[in-house]
Amino acid sequence: MSDGTKASTDAQRLAERAAQALAENDKTALHLGIRLVEIRPGYARMAMRVRSDMVNGHHICHGGMVFTLADTAFAYSCNSYNENTVAAAASIDFLAPAHEGDELTAVAVEVWRTRRNGIYEITVTNQRDERIALFRGRSYRIDGQLVSTG
Amino acid sequence: MSDGTKASTDAQRLAERAAQALAENDKTALHLGIRLVEIRPGYARMAMRVRSDMVNGHHICHGGMVFTLADTAFAYSCNSYNENTVAAAASIDFLAPAHEGDELTAVAVEVWRTRRNGIYEITVTNQRDERIALFRGRSYRIDGQLVSTG
Amino acid sequence: MSDGTKASTDAQRLAERAAQALAENDKTALHLGIRLVEIRPGYARMAMRVRSDMVNGHHICHGGMVFTLADTAFAYSCNSYNENTVAAAASIDFLAPAHEGDELTAVAVEVWRTRRNGIYEITVTNQRDERIALFRGRSYRIDGQLVSTG
Amino acid sequence: MSDGTKASTDAQRLAERAAQALAENDKTALHLGIRLVEIRPGYARMAMRVRSDMVNGHHICHGGMVFTLADTAFAYSCNSYNENTVAAAASIDFLAPAHEGDELTAVAVEVWRTRRNGIYEITVTNQRDERIALFRGRSYRIDGQLVSTG
Repeated sequence: MSDGTKASTDAQRLAERAAQALAENDKTALHLGIRLVEIRPGYARMAMRVRSDMVNGHHICHGGMVFTLADTAFAYSCNSYNENTVAAAASIDFLAPAHEGDELTAVAVEVWRTRRNGIYEITVTNQRDERIALFRGRSYRIDGQLVSTG
Repeated sequence: MSDGTKASTDAQRLAERAAQALAENDKTALHLGIRLVEIRPGYARMAMRVRSDMVNGHHICHGGMVFTLADTAFAYSCNSYNENTVAAAASIDFLAPAHEGDELTAVAVEVWRTRRNGIYEITVTNQRDERIALFRGRSYRIDGQLVSTG
Repeated sequence: MSDGTKASTDAQRLAERAAQALAENDKTALHLGIRLVEIRPGYARMAMRVRSDMVNGHHICHGGMVFTLADTAFAYSCNSYNENTVAAAASIDFLAPAHEGDELTAVAVEVWRTRRNGIYEITVTNQRDERIALFRGRSYRIDGQLVSTG
Repeated sequence: MSDGTKASTDAQRLAERAAQALAENDKTALHLGIRLVEIRPGYARMAMRVRSDMVNGHHICHGGMVFTLADTAFAYSCNSYNENTVAAAASIDFLAPAHEGDELTAVAVEVWRTRRNGIYEITVTNQRDERIALFRGRSYRIDGQLVSTG
């Protein structure tokens, strides 16, 4: 195995371990049925089915639930380097409504990262690949790591 | 009663009826224990206790739950004129973490409104009046009303 | 020429004519030396050299100048269908400073569009292809057209 | 003079000196005729007349010029503690168009600040006190100071 391949494999293993550590404590994701589908360094794909308790007063999926799915994908992607990282800010554009029973997918992609700060773009789509929302998050690294690498 | 007072009373009654109509269908707010504390035309105050199923992988309140509380106050304030109105976009700045057991309050204030578009600012604080998040929402009026005024 | 090719050619010609109409009246772009490099339906590429009168109190390119370049590319891209369209809102993340003498390029890409509303992403880079800023704009179509198509 | 009064006076003097240091190097503000009207710790008020070279292709004031005025007020307010501080991100909502000849005022108010990060809200109005734009900026403190306090 070349050094480049090994570094890449190590980074992937670390991303998987960090995601597992997050998942064990993420009661919100568990409670809402948000599932991790794919994790890579700086990337996460998650899914959520819109349940009957996720609609709002207009009979469509609550914007907060769409945001929560996107924010969760954001969290897994920006924590994939095993450095404790939190959201500093986020913005979301709602493009189309989601409905009860829809299967939503959020894909988080890193667009920029320095030692402390990062920017991630998350796209939420439904089961027909229609875009539901665009989310842009700004991350901030705090002290500590998710899993021990000793 | 002067005409101005009557108009003001009518607007307040309409805001209350619209809020009640929203509340009856807002399964998300019900499910998360979000309570309407005060409603006025262009204004809403809502509260939520951070439950054990609202924390994330860093053992703090999930940003999506803070957003959902703010977004709900946003929805009630921008629908207070009884015109069906949805969120077009929103941005949030996370100022301080919230923790399990915290009692959060979101106050939504209208800062600008035209026939179709509106901007609302929502501040989320905890039980010590510390600011947890600042939220700015852009609303978009769609067709229809929440309650009949015939 | 097939119908599809003809429609595509017509759309391109309309984009070019709309851009020319904008350019004739865009005193700000002229004044700041902003040049249109490429225009297509829903797409614009523009360039600007950072002059000595574009720096701020920290001796770097003023954020307002970076924004203005991005906003101009946004305007040309969202007006490329020959429907009068203005900016409703925009957000910008400043990734790295630009300096006097830098040659900046802004590429605007349409990410979503309905009859009235649109979202565009603009990336600003320097002559070394380093990203200087990310800009996301929300457009709103108003009445009227830029050039007559009678 | 009480200690509190003296601290307050010192903070004000520092804000004025920092603003002067910024102004001496801010070629953009000079070039666009942006004037500092009032400076206080965490606060700045600035004015700009919309000149004929500040309009865009729709014959209204270029959004980039409105942004630049707001961004300049943002810069003066967040640098008022004499710590070198730059913009990390900003968002703007355009509420109403400005026109050639309008006298615009931008008022920047600090809404939150930690050791490194800050959030400021800037409101741009015209000579009839109509709101033209709302701007929210996120600041980031870098190393160094504007003026020596030795």
